[in-house]
Amino acid sequence: MNRKIVLTITGQALTVEAIALLIPAFVSLIYGEREALGFTAAAAIALVVGMLLKYIPKPQSGAMFEREGFAVVSLAWILMSLIGALPFVISGDIPSYVDAFFETVSGFTTTGASIINEVEKLSHAALLWRAMTHWIGGMGILVFVLMFGAKTSNHSMQILKAEMPGPVIGKLVPRARDTARALYVIYAGMTAFEAILLMISGMPLFDAVFHSLGTAGTGGFGMMNNSLAGYGFGSQWIITVFMVLFAVNFNLYFYAVRGDVKSALKSQELHVFIGIVICAIAIVTLDIRPLYGSLRDSLRLGSFQVASIISTTGFTTADFDSWPVLSKLVLFTVMFLGGCAGSTAGGLKTSRIIILYKTIRTELNRLLRPRRAQSLRLEGKPIEAGTVRSVSVFFAIYITIYIVTVFLVTIIERADAVTCFSAAAACLNNVGPGFALVGPTRSYFLFHPATKVILTVAMLIGRLEVYPILLTLSVRTWTEK
Amino acid sequence: MNRKIVLTITGQALTVEAIALLIPAFVSLIYGEREALGFTAAAAIALVVGMLLKYIPKPQSGAMFEREGFAVVSLAWILMSLIGALPFVISGDIPSYVDAFFETVSGFTTTGASIINEVEKLSHAALLWRAMTHWIGGMGILVFVLMFGAKTSNHSMQILKAEMPGPVIGKLVPRARDTARALYVIYAGMTAFEAILLMISGMPLFDAVFHSLGTAGTGGFGMMNNSLAGYGFGSQWIITVFMVLFAVNFNLYFYAVRGDVKSALKSQELHVFIGIVICAIAIVTLDIRPLYGSLRDSLRLGSFQVASIISTTGFTTADFDSWPVLSKLVLFTVMFLGGCAGSTAGGLKTSRIIILYKTIRTELNRLLRPRRAQSLRLEGKPIEAGTVRSVSVFFAIYITIYIVTVFLVTIIERADAVTCFSAAAACLNNVGPGFALVGPTRSYFLFHPATKVILTVAMLIGRLEVYPILLTLSVRTWTEK
Repeated sequence: MNRKIVLTITGQALTVEAIALLIPAFVSLIYGEREALGFTAAAAIALVVGMLLKYIPKPQSGAMFEREGFAVVSLAWILMSLIGALPFVISGDIPSYVDAFFETVSGFTTTGASIINEVEKLSHAALLWRAMTHWIGGMGILVFVLMFGAKTSNHSMQILKAEMPGPVIGKLVPRARDTARALYVIYAGMTAFEAILLMISGMPLFDAVFHSLGTAGTGGFGMMNNSLAGYGFGSQWIITVFMVLFAVNFNLYFYAVRGDVKSALKSQELHVFIGIVICAIAIVTLDIRPLYGSLRDSLRLGSFQVASIISTTGFTTADFDSWPVLSKLVLFTVMFLGGCAGSTAGGLKTSRIIILYKTIRTELNRLLRPRRAQSLRLEGKPIEAGTVRSVSVFFAIYITIYIVTVFLVTIIERADAVTCFSAAAACLNNVGPGFALVGPTRSYFLFHPATKVILTVAMLIGRLEVYPILLTLSVRTWTEK
Repeated sequence: MNRKIVLTITGQALTVEAIALLIPAFVSLIYGEREALGFTAAAAIALVVGMLLKYIPKPQSGAMFEREGFAVVSLAWILMSLIGALPFVISGDIPSYVDAFFETVSGFTTTGASIINEVEKLSHAALLWRAMTHWIGGMGILVFVLMFGAKTSNHSMQILKAEMPGPVIGKLVPRARDTARALYVIYAGMTAFEAILLMISGMPLFDAVFHSLGTAGTGGFGMMNNSLAGYGFGSQWIITVFMVLFAVNFNLYFYAVRGDVKSALKSQELHVFIGIVICAIAIVTLDIRPLYGSLRDSLRLGSFQVASIISTTGFTTADFDSWPVLSKLVLFTVMFLGGCAGSTAGGLKTSRIIILYKTIRTELNRLLRPRRAQSLRLEGKPIEAGTVRSVSVFFAIYITIYIVTVFLVTIIERADAVTCFSAAAACLNNVGPGFALVGPTRSYFLFHPATKVILTVAMLIGRLEVYPILLTLSVRTWTEK
């Protein structure tokens, strides 16, 4: 393990966080709030720790393999969350540090699960920081750091691999640095575009920025106790569309921006994802229609909620916990499906579902015709045997971690099955709200601190797609040469 | 597809069923019941259909591959259930044919899920036939048929593969026919031994035979409305031990009988299985202790229920649906784990769990040391790459089928989540009782006929381990040369 390069890059990430923390500090001055102190203090700590990590141990070699990529990502995300939680504690908005840490990890991992019961009492600075954690975590802070890296560096791909979600990561352009820039330009552009549309639809500036940052990262923190239920239908529809857009593979936007709209629209993953979204919306809309009378209202509420849950955002416009059991089952299932690879969404990812489906089909064909060679293709290209194997194994690990999380939550909380199963699912898949005691009108506040720590780990495992956190927890990762 | 060999062997299975049906007919004469007619009529039908299948189309070739093995097994099990359901309808015990078919499939697949509310009103003949379906289905009727096959036949292994549960089937002795005989001798011997012990513990002859047949097949049909709660503690403990014994790989008994007790006790699968059983019993016993006061009662009830559910038998001595949520979660989880490969138990099977665990560990090691070759071993022998891959895929298919079943049940029943999730789990894993509306004090009677058909298919998919039923449903299986 090249520990020094791990610490150096983690240091760079903390420096970026320091700068990010100054933004809410500045905003609190505008609104005349007393939060500036907490954010500035946290920024100073981030800066000092970052500098220490960057400058004390000079790396002798820039050699970086998969395990270093995983270690950087885990370490950076955990340290950023530990420091990012400080302003909440300093300001007194969240008195318990465990709670503040939960909230911050929930932010960075774009989960949006909250322990705050009265979110409307928060200052503008605290609200903005929560939304910013979503935005930073959505595309990944290390991908952001890569933008400022050297033109050629052998470690960039390992970081992209470890932080970007999905089974296969392709560089869009030859240099990883330029790939990172392209991704962030598209990301920022779409976020700004959403904010402008929301303002046009009548949302105030702060609210528009807040919700755009949360939509872009597919996060889901709200600034109102009833999330988006109180906003106009126009704003709700805009957010519905953007939640789906941010759950689409960003590579497609890159192709589209370069003028190759045709190959963007030909993506198999896109077709399957949109197909699932439409089916889910149709089922939920018909299922909840008796509750809301008109088809128009059911379609609006159903579309919003399906888009919100499948993109693992977690905004709500209705108390979907009171919906009929079929709708709840659809929402629970799409939590696990999640968005496309290479998007800001969580869950298993559509491309993994496609590969799993094709693997199953191939296995059945193999039994019918044992001698015929089978090859698996995705987006027109053959999938490597290693990727196929690792997708099946990933599914098994993911389900195992899910069950272990359910067990731990149940042992501590002794709550009903629906609460425990859905809390674990909502955190592991980075969704946010679940059902019953963690339903859309509740918060994670009442849980035991130990449960909160377990769910925090689940959120990190989900966002970083299992391997970084599992490997970082293993001693062998750090001692192995 | 060699359709003729498929039909010939299916015909042989029905002939065996005809003989089996005469046993309850005979018993009904002893007890002076009027059921003899129904069973004799069903036996006649089984014989005629069996003869037609055997003698009308002469197979030109004995060639048999995996797909023929799967087709034989599916066809035989479905036809046997269709005919085996007739006595219930003819006698009027179960007026609806869908209900009778559900009950019979539940019997043959050793599920033990029942649609009968007042089981104590059933005749001795009907009770015995229910227990016999468990016993016949437990080891497999085609394995039984193999015992009378030619000394050498190229199709025997395909049948063993398709009907015996587990990821790898090894012939115990060079000839499949002798393997089948060895398995059935051990099976019958252990069943008889249990019956004798139960009689010594004070159970009447009929009850002892009834429960021994059910334990051996890990079935779970009861002859009392409260299952085994009304019997003595001695009988309950005997059944607890035998439920575990019948969930152990029969190969180990074969080694033990041949004097090689040492290699039987060295089995890794056995160690893991017993480890899981002990852990589950410990958790449940401690968890339910406040309900029952004494540790002795909690241990008896906890041990019985864990043994019953992990072996996928389904007998009960307590209403475990009223137990605390942690105990219910343990029971729900062990439903999926199931017993060992090569036993009469259902579920995923311990050896698959071990292979999955090792696959996950190998995948993590691969990330740490990409260049080191990894090999996977079970019971001291290397596992083929194909087996490793197929276990991961099997897990994915199994979970997918489970979720689809939950969806179908939810759409039709609109029942609460716990009912739908546990009904699907209890049927797919061949357990029997679930929670809530399908809890131990309830039956599957109230479900819609469509739900019953869906759960019937789930039971068959679970017992035959997915592939036979899925492939038989595909047109390509039948048309492909």
